[in-house]
Amino acid sequence: MHVPCATIVRMNPPTGARDRARAPRVVRLALAQVNPVVGDLPGNTKRVLDFLERARAGGADLVAFPELVLTGYPPEDLLLRPEFIDQNHAALDEVVRATRGITAIVGFAQRAGDVYNAAAIAHDGQLSAVYQKSHLPNYGVFDEVRYFRPGRDPFVCVRGPLRFAVNVCEDIWTPSGPTALALYGESELVINLSSSPFHSGKSISRDRMLATRASDGVAFVAFINTVGGQDELVFDGNSRVFGPRGDELARAAAFEEELVLVDLDLDMVFGARLKDPRSREAAQTAPGNGESSLRSVTLPPLAEAAEAAPAPEKKPPIPARATRHPVGAEETYRALVLGTHDYIRKNGFRHVVLGLSGGVDSALTASIAVDALGAENVTGVFLPSPYTSHESAEDAEALAKNLGIDYRAIPIGDEMNSYQASLAAVFAGRPDDTTEENLQSRIRGNLLMALSNKFGWMVLTTGNKSEYSCGYATLYGDMAGGYAVLKDVFKTLVYELARHRNAAAAKPWIPERTITRPPTAELKPGQLDTDSLPPYEVLDPILRAYVEEDWEVDRIVALGHERALVRRVIRMVDRAEYKRRQAPPGIRITPRALGKDRRLPITNRHQPWRD
Amino acid sequence: MHVPCATIVRMNPPTGARDRARAPRVVRLALAQVNPVVGDLPGNTKRVLDFLERARAGGADLVAFPELVLTGYPPEDLLLRPEFIDQNHAALDEVVRATRGITAIVGFAQRAGDVYNAAAIAHDGQLSAVYQKSHLPNYGVFDEVRYFRPGRDPFVCVRGPLRFAVNVCEDIWTPSGPTALALYGESELVINLSSSPFHSGKSISRDRMLATRASDGVAFVAFINTVGGQDELVFDGNSRVFGPRGDELARAAAFEEELVLVDLDLDMVFGARLKDPRSREAAQTAPGNGESSLRSVTLPPLAEAAEAAPAPEKKPPIPARATRHPVGAEETYRALVLGTHDYIRKNGFRHVVLGLSGGVDSALTASIAVDALGAENVTGVFLPSPYTSHESAEDAEALAKNLGIDYRAIPIGDEMNSYQASLAAVFAGRPDDTTEENLQSRIRGNLLMALSNKFGWMVLTTGNKSEYSCGYATLYGDMAGGYAVLKDVFKTLVYELARHRNAAAAKPWIPERTITRPPTAELKPGQLDTDSLPPYEVLDPILRAYVEEDWEVDRIVALGHERALVRRVIRMVDRAEYKRRQAPPGIRITPRALGKDRRLPITNRHQPWRD
Repeated sequence: MHVPCATIVRMNPPTGARDRARAPRVVRLALAQVNPVVGDLPGNTKRVLDFLERARAGGADLVAFPELVLTGYPPEDLLLRPEFIDQNHAALDEVVRATRGITAIVGFAQRAGDVYNAAAIAHDGQLSAVYQKSHLPNYGVFDEVRYFRPGRDPFVCVRGPLRFAVNVCEDIWTPSGPTALALYGESELVINLSSSPFHSGKSISRDRMLATRASDGVAFVAFINTVGGQDELVFDGNSRVFGPRGDELARAAAFEEELVLVDLDLDMVFGARLKDPRSREAAQTAPGNGESSLRSVTLPPLAEAAEAAPAPEKKPPIPARATRHPVGAEETYRALVLGTHDYIRKNGFRHVVLGLSGGVDSALTASIAVDALGAENVTGVFLPSPYTSHESAEDAEALAKNLGIDYRAIPIGDEMNSYQASLAAVFAGRPDDTTEENLQSRIRGNLLMALSNKFGWMVLTTGNKSEYSCGYATLYGDMAGGYAVLKDVFKTLVYELARHRNAAAAKPWIPERTITRPPTAELKPGQLDTDSLPPYEVLDPILRAYVEEDWEVDRIVALGHERALVRRVIRMVDRAEYKRRQAPPGIRITPRALGKDRRLPITNRHQPWRD
Repeated sequence: MHVPCATIVRMNPPTGARDRARAPRVVRLALAQVNPVVGDLPGNTKRVLDFLERARAGGADLVAFPELVLTGYPPEDLLLRPEFIDQNHAALDEVVRATRGITAIVGFAQRAGDVYNAAAIAHDGQLSAVYQKSHLPNYGVFDEVRYFRPGRDPFVCVRGPLRFAVNVCEDIWTPSGPTALALYGESELVINLSSSPFHSGKSISRDRMLATRASDGVAFVAFINTVGGQDELVFDGNSRVFGPRGDELARAAAFEEELVLVDLDLDMVFGARLKDPRSREAAQTAPGNGESSLRSVTLPPLAEAAEAAPAPEKKPPIPARATRHPVGAEETYRALVLGTHDYIRKNGFRHVVLGLSGGVDSALTASIAVDALGAENVTGVFLPSPYTSHESAEDAEALAKNLGIDYRAIPIGDEMNSYQASLAAVFAGRPDDTTEENLQSRIRGNLLMALSNKFGWMVLTTGNKSEYSCGYATLYGDMAGGYAVLKDVFKTLVYELARHRNAAAAKPWIPERTITRPPTAELKPGQLDTDSLPPYEVLDPILRAYVEEDWEVDRIVALGHERALVRRVIRMVDRAEYKRRQAPPGIRITPRALGKDRRLPITNRHQPWRD
């Protein structure tokens, strides 16, 4: 587990209408971007208390944690256990008691007659208020209507000179939602607790939306996100604070735990609103006519010291800090590393094993495993058949040597012969076909699972999204394993990630020939992937259009693809649904992975490939 | 596919305040209990047109089809394809054109800006009205909020002398929902289109609810349900009509397609309401004050013949008919047969193969397969190892002979030796453990899958709910296959079903010793299930409390179980989540199966078994 380190951020120098004589009204906010484990109430509580303590030590007035931080996100059907909900209340009580001298905003599951996805506002050892999430996402990977009743009651908290509102994840994605309402209610700061999962490019559109909310409301917007992997999902962190003109004031790292401190000069809001009074008009037409419908919750002065306008000069200044946001291949690669690390470790495993074929999928998977777990925790097994080429053997061994991982070779010829003999009578007179190919793949799967069973290693599967989409993979064979690292990575992106990782490496990493050789499953003599599939640079755009976008044939053909090919490809996709249903989970890096966000029936006679 | 046969039902003789001089106002209603295939728009349309024609031939005034009959239920993410929704509109157009001289009520997915789960009221070749489902279930196996916008607009249709309202499935489960509203609006008949899935005992509670709605509203309630299997789900049919005192007037068969005709004497409603005027008061306090909020849609007289009060004497009378509702083991067994039949056939398979161990799980699975598909479409394979007993061999062969299925024997000893040799160096010095047991199971899985690949047979797995719950099954071994027939059947129920089927058989069926022998996996010498698990009569109640009810340890202990045992069992359940995620689908027969209605995270540190 990454050891979190506090980083602090200086807000941009105040600008605009702020040259009055009195001291600036400055609030120090801590973004506690933590990595909880689903279901781990004691562990998550400990983590929250740790970050709370560090926020206090950093002089924070407020510290905000992600959505459902106590339970982890998404807790799924754990939320159908009364015991679990009650235990999360006990955890909250512990956190509340620890808030002497500070205000903490903490996501939890509230039992109040029914169950709410809620944010507790805990202040100076007391539970002051609870906000109940109003907008429950129930699309894509989200199923919140299954678990929660929507809240109906936004409010504004008043702490000393600060007026702030709290809401939860989806609430801020709705333009007319609680965020707007809070801002018309003259909040100076909206704090949004999120567990917003990653896909490639998500942080850009999210930042754009958050900046727009801030500039629309002419206020500060703080977004605190979960970081870490949970089954298919990776939460990227990327917590942010935007100022009243939509300018980014603070950012937490991507894919790492972090505590970020930021000083917010509240007078900037008043000054900016004088120049941008859109909210006056909007408040007139807002539901409930703006402020009138908002409850105010006043947080009492701190017991130890009456809370006046906190003067920033009492606190040590926050040093400037530069963070670089990973983009493109780097961002995706890091998501895969974090997802792999957290799935393995949070499930109590230390060591992984995978088959090395000499090809690029297993090479990239091994590379990700090494970056996630360390070379000492990775075993690569080369499982040659009589059809395996010399080049594959060399490349598999070279990869293992480059990566510094444990390497074994177990030929599978004897098992092939045994099965052939057992089936000879039943198969008499039938030509060889994919049956014999699948058997090789399943022998390899069995051997890897035997190593897993004997040594307690998790098997990583190496198939990519192109293969899983088309069913170009063997159920119980190369699909056998605990985690499918590349399940949402199209083959063309596999190459891009391999090249990216090689470029970043200080020493030889993935052998060049592994990247340049034509891909082959080597399940019969001279076999190439292109015997069964179109070239990946043709295949992948068709798959993206069909699998991720649900486009119909005509629309895909209009992209410039041959109609017969489009039909053949989507037929393969539809007919492989039963395989995907038995596939291991993998890391979601696109807006539509082959997981809980794509729920097709197996029994399905909608056949868009037909005339 | 079962060939549907029209059955007609005589309504109970009119009773109560009905001795006025004029002719009774009688409407003939047809319940079209059909078995659609998800996604099969052309096939489902054809089926609807066929039943429509038969209803017309039977003299029906109204014919009602199930919820989403054109798309099949549940269409899942097919509903995210614009093309699919548009095609279902084209299918509806075809049905509407066919309604000359009759009124049809047909479930479809309506595109009207957004998408609605809707019922079309088609009358005499025109689309007269569309009802949009108001209450969208999003719990258990249901995800309707993912796909649909809720409707807000109930209405009453007026056809000649009849006032009726239409709603969809969940709508009628809500006591204050559209059903109540329609009845306060003086509807005489509520027609509910459903796709209501089976679990054991469901039809009893459903009938109870429907009868209560009818007697609460003092009106006729007609419930038209889908029949058939769809992936995990079985729809049991059991369409019903209840009269204004909650008396059952008509019933369609369980687990079969059927067209049921029933004559409804509308004057019974008026007469009964004079004696039971509860709705007068209720209408005062109903949302929108009852009738005033309901639109009326008047269906024009039929073009061919002006529609007067249809005189029942013009139509041939409906002969009396007795149907017996299957209960207990019989009901469950029939659900399993239908689920198996439909999964195999709707997915385009004819023949299944399964491993016969000589034990009761594979015997019951084979029996269900034979009843579903015919003995000529079932192959049983006996796969002995050196640990397999003589009794198992005899019982497997006897079963195959009794059932009249194709029988093969393929010993697995050679494969065991091959793997052992390949792994000898890596495993050196390690004692045998479950690794070696799993290898045997996986060899068997591979051989069955090889037969599947070579001959196009689907593999049925034979594991039961007790095993899948505890993880007492081998991933890629005995869990390998296309369909897990007994996945939701606890072992104690497996025995009950086996005895039930034997009692119903006219000849020797499952060998008696298969039922009486202590269960064993025979993966090592002298092994018994009770080496690893408590006796099933102790295990199953614990599993039911934890898996189906989410009870906590204390509550399960209070049932009289030993605390240490309860902890051990639920620990096994939680730790096997990753296996279940890669299991084949199976037939849901309980309120909580190990499928889409139980969505636990794999990565999960909630550990109720700990102190």
